[in-house]
Amino acid sequence: MIEFDLFVVGTGPAGQRAAVQAAKLGKKVGIAERREVVGGVCINTGTIPSKTFREAVLYLTGFQQRGLYGASYKVKETITMQDLLFRCQHVIKVETEVIRNQMQRNGITLLTGSARFLDPHTIEVRETGRTETVRAGVVILAPGTRAALPKGVEVDGRTIITADDILDLKEMPRTLTVVGAGVIGLEYASIFGPLGVKVTLIDKVTRLLGFVDGEIIEALSYQMRAMGCIFRLNEEVASLAVEEPRRAAAVLKSGKKVVSDLLLYSVGRVGATDDLDLAAAGLSADDRGRMTVNSSYQTTVPHIYAAGDVIGFPALASTSMEQGRRAACHAFGAQTETLPHLFPYGIYSIPEISMVGRTEEELTAAGVPYETGIARYREIARGAILGDDSGLLKILFHRETRRLLGVHIIGTGATELVHIGQAVMAHDGLIDYFVNNVFNYPTFAECYKVAALDGYNKIGPARPAGA
Amino acid sequence: MIEFDLFVVGTGPAGQRAAVQAAKLGKKVGIAERREVVGGVCINTGTIPSKTFREAVLYLTGFQQRGLYGASYKVKETITMQDLLFRCQHVIKVETEVIRNQMQRNGITLLTGSARFLDPHTIEVRETGRTETVRAGVVILAPGTRAALPKGVEVDGRTIITADDILDLKEMPRTLTVVGAGVIGLEYASIFGPLGVKVTLIDKVTRLLGFVDGEIIEALSYQMRAMGCIFRLNEEVASLAVEEPRRAAAVLKSGKKVVSDLLLYSVGRVGATDDLDLAAAGLSADDRGRMTVNSSYQTTVPHIYAAGDVIGFPALASTSMEQGRRAACHAFGAQTETLPHLFPYGIYSIPEISMVGRTEEELTAAGVPYETGIARYREIARGAILGDDSGLLKILFHRETRRLLGVHIIGTGATELVHIGQAVMAHDGLIDYFVNNVFNYPTFAECYKVAALDGYNKIGPARPAGA
Repeated sequence: MIEFDLFVVGTGPAGQRAAVQAAKLGKKVGIAERREVVGGVCINTGTIPSKTFREAVLYLTGFQQRGLYGASYKVKETITMQDLLFRCQHVIKVETEVIRNQMQRNGITLLTGSARFLDPHTIEVRETGRTETVRAGVVILAPGTRAALPKGVEVDGRTIITADDILDLKEMPRTLTVVGAGVIGLEYASIFGPLGVKVTLIDKVTRLLGFVDGEIIEALSYQMRAMGCIFRLNEEVASLAVEEPRRAAAVLKSGKKVVSDLLLYSVGRVGATDDLDLAAAGLSADDRGRMTVNSSYQTTVPHIYAAGDVIGFPALASTSMEQGRRAACHAFGAQTETLPHLFPYGIYSIPEISMVGRTEEELTAAGVPYETGIARYREIARGAILGDDSGLLKILFHRETRRLLGVHIIGTGATELVHIGQAVMAHDGLIDYFVNNVFNYPTFAECYKVAALDGYNKIGPARPAGA
Repeated sequence: MIEFDLFVVGTGPAGQRAAVQAAKLGKKVGIAERREVVGGVCINTGTIPSKTFREAVLYLTGFQQRGLYGASYKVKETITMQDLLFRCQHVIKVETEVIRNQMQRNGITLLTGSARFLDPHTIEVRETGRTETVRAGVVILAPGTRAALPKGVEVDGRTIITADDILDLKEMPRTLTVVGAGVIGLEYASIFGPLGVKVTLIDKVTRLLGFVDGEIIEALSYQMRAMGCIFRLNEEVASLAVEEPRRAAAVLKSGKKVVSDLLLYSVGRVGATDDLDLAAAGLSADDRGRMTVNSSYQTTVPHIYAAGDVIGFPALASTSMEQGRRAACHAFGAQTETLPHLFPYGIYSIPEISMVGRTEEELTAAGVPYETGIARYREIARGAILGDDSGLLKILFHRETRRLLGVHIIGTGATELVHIGQAVMAHDGLIDYFVNNVFNYPTFAECYKVAALDGYNKIGPARPAGA
């Protein structure tokens, strides 16, 4: 029996930050990880590998430079899965090492094995061949999620896969069906496009990613179609099957049949709570394995917290880290700011998307008299230099106060650029800041100025304007 | 004789923005350009081509991915000057087209030819074969600069060149001597490094770029040396000569001799005011062709303004644009904010550098009790994904108020990233913002959070901390 002030289940972004935060507050901390490696889905099969895979696609296909170079400059004529995944293993190794060092430096005890409650303060961690029992004053559950599985057909990891299997792919498919157009499905559908893979994307929805601004999603759809992607929206899969020789067949309720080399099943994720024996702690999960918490990340049992993907939306690594950190702070009485409502979204599709603040749809629904300002990468020197002529940055601001209300970007560097607008919004800034500011030249950041000037031109008489 | 409300000399960033601004204020505007193409040094031989050249080097050498791929992934085995410059012509064409359209859209009259004053309100523009005389109520001079030439030796454009000749190079040198370690000299010295060119950089100074933070410059020097660059600082060139067959020889006052295939002479630039006949307007330039203006960009003759590189430091495209815009606003009574003192510097070396606010040296001299917070790219997931393990972001902040005082970055994306810190500084923000903010993961922007947490750890007892 080991005693801890805090015991954390899961070493993904939420668990890891919770553990480090508590250690920094002087607490004795233990953490359980059921995999052999730390980092959770984020490092090992999800966020990090998909972003690394994406970066490899961008580089090896010369996609970003496509406007500037011909085929003679393509890095590799035939790109294999090995080329693309080579880099993933390296990055995963670096990142798990970083986490392991950080835990060691902070004196956190790592137990490898599957955790389950014996009672609300006692957890058993079963490693192969041995079992450890721990007691803790506070427990933070950050077990993460696993891909939901289709009914009636086996996910064989070769012809029908989930996102968790991508790293193990041996062959580049010529055709790919993606079932489920959530963030993960869209990201992979768009990443395979530049590789020349014929992608078909199927989803029940009629409009992709409802929380993203309509104009931005339209731009993504348009560009994915231009790469050959076929959208089957407002369609539902009636049945899935593997047809020999190694072809995945999806029959839709409308009667269509989509056959491809590979099918990625990506219809959401379920909380990995099955093995936790939550009942022994007086807790339960919903039918998707998800847990419910209050605004301090406490479950119905006050000394047991939950954070990260297991508590659902937004299920981003960035927000999960903050949730873990804040749960630990709350548990040990350390003060934190309220979680900023201005958290950004980053969608690592090709091209990439990022946003902060409200969308046009939200502002319209709320009756806010907003105006838009738009900058297109092709009007910006940096866009010409990099060969990105399809990017777009849109700012939304209040017509009367000129307060910045939202930033929506699609194009190279979107996930970085959004933080400039976020900083201005967090400080209640006006678009006047962008008009009067000096930006490095040539940068994509200049888009903020161009967009603000465009916005100014829409709201009134002659104002300082440079474009 | 054509009459204008405003006549502008020069179509670089300053002239172009001045003209557009006045046109937006409803004025009749003419502009003279002595080259056959618009855009000035910025578009045609300076900023844009050097940044494009740099981007081509990064892509074709696979430099940014060097940590992740071996030589087998290099885009081209033998990189020629044609490969590198191919892209420049394309970008120049796009950019001049953008400017030309903008001037047309705004009804600006473009006169191609060399301008000179006949009297303070009258200017003659001499084209080949014809001469136009214009009269204007206001004149804005934005003639730009040309490279200073060495004494006693001919710049032949093949063996001894200035930065203005780079685009015309036919062959890749194996060895390069750069005389003058200002921004331009350093940029080119660092850009040729990844191409495998042996570079020797000579300058009188003992410390590179005095206005840049010492730690950042040290990192640049270290990385340039690692690429094989030899620094000859505190050395002066006694004589330059071309030795057959086509070798440039620089003899230093210390007696050393540096021989190379190509020598880039880069010891500053002089105002291109020779042909303006300034005396006819009651004006004069200094011995480097530079003009002096007041804070409204007026010369000693109040209706004649000067803006851009011709008025000297900082001589950045970004600041020149603002100067031109503000000169036009002042001339026609339109209100402008005072020029933000928070203008950023971008140095497009490899790796790239950017900064805003004050340096450690400046804060020390001013007796400000500051503390530093540092984030290294190699600790950041995005650094591992992109293969940049040498980048560094440093924030400087006030120990007591925690106000952000400066941001200094070296590494991928520095010129974009600096604008996040700049926005926080412009709104008098604290580093607490970075600690409490949610950043997209994985991004380089996360460095702000890591740096702020590092800073927090230095100033006191346990505070909210996630690293």
